[in-house]
Amino acid sequence: MSNQRQILVGVLGATGTVGQRFIHLLSSHPFFTLHALGASSRSAGKPYGAAVKWKLPFPIPARAKALVVKECKAEEFKDCGVVFSGLDAEVAGDIESAFRAAELAVFSNSKNHRRDPVVPLIVPLVNPSHFSIIPHQRSIHSPRLQTGFIVTNANCSTTGLVIPLAALEAAFGPLESVMVTTMQAISGAGYPGVPSLDIFDNVVPHIGGEEEKMEWETAKILGGISHDGTAFEMHATNPMRVSAACNRVPVIEGHTEAVSVRFARRPPPSPQQIREALEAYTCEAQTLECPSAPKKVIYVHDEPDRPQPRLDRDFQAGAGVNVGRIRECAVLDIKFVVLSNNVCIGAATSSIINAEIAVFKGLI
Amino acid sequence: MSNQRQILVGVLGATGTVGQRFIHLLSSHPFFTLHALGASSRSAGKPYGAAVKWKLPFPIPARAKALVVKECKAEEFKDCGVVFSGLDAEVAGDIESAFRAAELAVFSNSKNHRRDPVVPLIVPLVNPSHFSIIPHQRSIHSPRLQTGFIVTNANCSTTGLVIPLAALEAAFGPLESVMVTTMQAISGAGYPGVPSLDIFDNVVPHIGGEEEKMEWETAKILGGISHDGTAFEMHATNPMRVSAACNRVPVIEGHTEAVSVRFARRPPPSPQQIREALEAYTCEAQTLECPSAPKKVIYVHDEPDRPQPRLDRDFQAGAGVNVGRIRECAVLDIKFVVLSNNVCIGAATSSIINAEIAVFKGLI
Amino acid sequence: MSNQRQILVGVLGATGTVGQRFIHLLSSHPFFTLHALGASSRSAGKPYGAAVKWKLPFPIPARAKALVVKECKAEEFKDCGVVFSGLDAEVAGDIESAFRAAELAVFSNSKNHRRDPVVPLIVPLVNPSHFSIIPHQRSIHSPRLQTGFIVTNANCSTTGLVIPLAALEAAFGPLESVMVTTMQAISGAGYPGVPSLDIFDNVVPHIGGEEEKMEWETAKILGGISHDGTAFEMHATNPMRVSAACNRVPVIEGHTEAVSVRFARRPPPSPQQIREALEAYTCEAQTLECPSAPKKVIYVHDEPDRPQPRLDRDFQAGAGVNVGRIRECAVLDIKFVVLSNNVCIGAATSSIINAEIAVFKGLI
Amino acid sequence: MSNQRQILVGVLGATGTVGQRFIHLLSSHPFFTLHALGASSRSAGKPYGAAVKWKLPFPIPARAKALVVKECKAEEFKDCGVVFSGLDAEVAGDIESAFRAAELAVFSNSKNHRRDPVVPLIVPLVNPSHFSIIPHQRSIHSPRLQTGFIVTNANCSTTGLVIPLAALEAAFGPLESVMVTTMQAISGAGYPGVPSLDIFDNVVPHIGGEEEKMEWETAKILGGISHDGTAFEMHATNPMRVSAACNRVPVIEGHTEAVSVRFARRPPPSPQQIREALEAYTCEAQTLECPSAPKKVIYVHDEPDRPQPRLDRDFQAGAGVNVGRIRECAVLDIKFVVLSNNVCIGAATSSIINAEIAVFKGLI
Repeated sequence: MSNQRQILVGVLGATGTVGQRFIHLLSSHPFFTLHALGASSRSAGKPYGAAVKWKLPFPIPARAKALVVKECKAEEFKDCGVVFSGLDAEVAGDIESAFRAAELAVFSNSKNHRRDPVVPLIVPLVNPSHFSIIPHQRSIHSPRLQTGFIVTNANCSTTGLVIPLAALEAAFGPLESVMVTTMQAISGAGYPGVPSLDIFDNVVPHIGGEEEKMEWETAKILGGISHDGTAFEMHATNPMRVSAACNRVPVIEGHTEAVSVRFARRPPPSPQQIREALEAYTCEAQTLECPSAPKKVIYVHDEPDRPQPRLDRDFQAGAGVNVGRIRECAVLDIKFVVLSNNVCIGAATSSIINAEIAVFKGLI
Repeated sequence: MSNQRQILVGVLGATGTVGQRFIHLLSSHPFFTLHALGASSRSAGKPYGAAVKWKLPFPIPARAKALVVKECKAEEFKDCGVVFSGLDAEVAGDIESAFRAAELAVFSNSKNHRRDPVVPLIVPLVNPSHFSIIPHQRSIHSPRLQTGFIVTNANCSTTGLVIPLAALEAAFGPLESVMVTTMQAISGAGYPGVPSLDIFDNVVPHIGGEEEKMEWETAKILGGISHDGTAFEMHATNPMRVSAACNRVPVIEGHTEAVSVRFARRPPPSPQQIREALEAYTCEAQTLECPSAPKKVIYVHDEPDRPQPRLDRDFQAGAGVNVGRIRECAVLDIKFVVLSNNVCIGAATSSIINAEIAVFKGLI
Repeated sequence: MSNQRQILVGVLGATGTVGQRFIHLLSSHPFFTLHALGASSRSAGKPYGAAVKWKLPFPIPARAKALVVKECKAEEFKDCGVVFSGLDAEVAGDIESAFRAAELAVFSNSKNHRRDPVVPLIVPLVNPSHFSIIPHQRSIHSPRLQTGFIVTNANCSTTGLVIPLAALEAAFGPLESVMVTTMQAISGAGYPGVPSLDIFDNVVPHIGGEEEKMEWETAKILGGISHDGTAFEMHATNPMRVSAACNRVPVIEGHTEAVSVRFARRPPPSPQQIREALEAYTCEAQTLECPSAPKKVIYVHDEPDRPQPRLDRDFQAGAGVNVGRIRECAVLDIKFVVLSNNVCIGAATSSIINAEIAVFKGLI
Repeated sequence: MSNQRQILVGVLGATGTVGQRFIHLLSSHPFFTLHALGASSRSAGKPYGAAVKWKLPFPIPARAKALVVKECKAEEFKDCGVVFSGLDAEVAGDIESAFRAAELAVFSNSKNHRRDPVVPLIVPLVNPSHFSIIPHQRSIHSPRLQTGFIVTNANCSTTGLVIPLAALEAAFGPLESVMVTTMQAISGAGYPGVPSLDIFDNVVPHIGGEEEKMEWETAKILGGISHDGTAFEMHATNPMRVSAACNRVPVIEGHTEAVSVRFARRPPPSPQQIREALEAYTCEAQTLECPSAPKKVIYVHDEPDRPQPRLDRDFQAGAGVNVGRIRECAVLDIKFVVLSNNVCIGAATSSIINAEIAVFKGLI
């Protein structure tokens, strides 16, 4: 990695919670060099250290502190080989499109382009094969783009779910049904996000749009892509029913999900076979030696009361997922618990690994 | 109610969390009069006010404060028409049996006798018909008992689940499958119970034995009883698959449960029909005018983000259950959220209503 | 009280957190009848039940639910004998002044008029004698007011402090120094108020303007009023040094304060004398038999670990204060802990008792 | 440091919370090598990984996992150059004495020997000069010890306090009065420690013995030592009054303390002078280049709402302290906020730096 060329990167929405996480993660990256920070016009023109209300439990990286915040205009980021977007959904759509049109490679954590039929929705530990749609995405732009594109990563709760599901499908064939009940951390809602009066000593059994996102995104991510790289298959060949119930709980970081699955294949695999398949799962980001990829995609816990968000969310810098309590389900086949770090693999870390994969695939 | 005779009652395990709740609830009861308090030999002989480490957010009732705590021996409770047990499982089994043998009517919140084939497991808003096994329970004792019996109420998480399930079966016939993921309050574990270091900023995805209890108890409660009142049917005629995933969350009181059900009948009822059936559900405890029964067994919330434990757990003094978010489930038929107060209808209030029913049925 | 005439009352800022508390408390008041609700133009014209995002753990009172919300204009409230204000500070000043000018009696929980030299700052359990400035307040208005006036109550953290201080000064003469460190509940900041990400697993050692308020308000409240009722003495005859350190802690309701005091008199009273004086303290609101006044102004706890917010904040419906741990201080004379309910006696309950006093004093 | 000889170390109370922290910290230490783990007979004989209920948010260090736990007997630790003790107070006194008698160097986090007139109570960033009593401590043992001794570090809440106080005394001479109100984290009580039902949504204004510890330990630590190294001066030359009010708050890690001080010198230093003195403070552990000493003993925050436990407790691996809100006090001279990590510099990190100092001073 030592003779890897350095790539200048920009961060859009740099003062927000996802933006702060990008900046923290990028401050020690082996080949991405933080170069430009974009935020609203209210922050533009100020040194980042003065513009941001920094909320992470580490100091602001020195390099970022001194950078003068820019407006989110493509010409300000023209030297950037990669642009990470942590923009709010209200503005992300147009800004990201404009950046793409200006031939910039955009890795977005926002939801705006996830349902776009030519934009891949990539969970880096699952479906980097979907990068193959990029030529098609560029080609339909007029004029045809040479270097610009948009790649999105998934909603935080979807990410934690699809990683073990992908491992199961890889080992045992298609899933027929998936039931998931989430217990999601407050950091998933950004800042200021959830008022303390709403969530202290409480559970809020509703997160606007989240259940629909989990059900829809799962099909796009786990589905294939056409051979000519022009369309997503949406798991249509083997229809998979996904039912999600999403809850906000008083936890700072780490989404816990209670998952039950039914396989198409009969008889289904045993809990022990499931355990082995999850443990054994590897992914292309590891083969490519992406520096931000976890050593172990899925860490399986054998203690009966793990994983737990406070104890396990920071394992592997939050880049993998944790699974535990694999057991038979009296209604579907198998149930288990997933714990993923919603601000790392569920957000900024996914974007960064996606960008690393793009570099290694020669897209940047 | 004013000319209702007063009935002297005792509380076993009086210094524990369930015992404290019994004492608080009984302090204003229209016809149960607190008469005797039992606890371990460590507390026996002391005035209750000195023996208890009172943990409720109300003062100790004056009547209880001055009562001298007794050992849990039946002769000390011989004047009691009703004995409530909030004993720990380590000791509850033998003590409750001894009290029954001494011709006392025991209403137990402990798990020990719940699986006994002649002891009814009664959720008062669901299956008071199971009281019909009491003559049989007495008859198999040698010598045959005249007034003694044991009635148990269900585990707190089971209670919240079976009330809406009973309403659905009453309206639409048998359920085929039930999936439930619980988010349970810390008070369900008693005191000292859950160490703060284990549950702050955390979810613990395991509660020992809880999933098995929910799956087994549901069948006993929702199943019928033989015409001769000698055996429980265990829902065997219409086998119902129940799969539970139990989690502890950082909430003080109120168990939230995400439930999905599949009906035997095809097509299944619509969400709107479900809503109406839940709202309309009434029970025998109401017909009997039990003073501790809720006005409304199931309160259905229409706001998209309700019920919530902190806002809804004390509605109707925690004696009913709250349901919300009734919607279609992509895997089973219908899903919804239940919120029940684990320390009220989930524990002491259930025992008290059970005793009220027994009084009105002439069993006491 | 039964033949007490009913007085129509209005609530300004009715959809806010203090407004909701007013409405809940007034729904069962013996002689104040909820008549008019005012809020921003965004809510005006809607039934209250539709306009409010109700956040209290009790249902919306039926009477309030159906009332159509009005704009905060005096003519809309002209039938109200009393107007309670829970308005935000951004708008409270002008609206309250306009209501006074329209001859309405305004009892405000807002900070805007607290420092006005003709507006009394009344903690109802401490200084209702300051009502004597009302004639002067009316007289300087042009034209002289007949029925209009403004009375404010204190900041929530000040209220909890000055009640025991008043008891101590009544018994032992002037205090020379007061040190107080607060641990304040999140509900003190209103809604949405404190973001959960800021206060979960955290202490925020700063509340903007709070320390200054506590230091300044204490002098106005505990100071006398001139014989002609035209000026506040501000404790100037016996200067009292007050030093406050204010902290936000992860508690929903109930402000805890660690207080140390030094008396002017030497030797100072003993802890036992302090205990007796606090217990014995009574106030004019009790003599007047104000229905919302607590039976006991100060409840003294003898257990070494009380008072605690979760266990003691609802005692006496939050209308009194709790004191415990009275002991010698190695630096000043005596230290103790105060716990007061910031949303009850610290806010709405104070306004309501103030209005009750005004009724009994014939000001309304 | 690279050619520093490796020193074998043992940990007593290895399965407890302080023991786990020792093991985590020592796993990457440059010259202390984990060699022996001691715990109760219940754990002895098992591999550490099987004996411990590991509660830290990092995996168990591989080296520790495989070590077989020993009983806390000196002969089992005879190869250890240093023994760290995280024993419970019930057993620490005798075991540590026995280890010293067996010529072992014991660095204890327990309270038992802190008041011993020949055992130094050393906060490593404050008073390593007190190591000079070790020869005397050895000499009074019969027979005179050659290598054995006991050094204690302070109570966690004392540690956070005395570090800034030492800096102030170093710069401005003796303090006359210190008032401190603590808001202490639950981890300070060990495991299982504080029941969640006691501290959720609550403040407990009492920690048994804590206020006395803070008042007494402060005098021993900040006081001098006689020239012949045989007695502690206990700050007697310049008597300092210390008054502490200790509270438990719902925070996992990090003790926040609101401190006010009065200097002997008149006029007192200004807030700005205080700020500079705290920032500039350095200590012998830094001069000696102890690897676990923080780069900056006291980090001064200028934001008005810092330090905060969740954001600042892990700065410098929790080895320094954070100070903020330096301002004038209306009663004493100056007030400020201190935040220290109770499980790092407040416990295990202090013991480890003390041992590093002892190594560099040639005592080991």
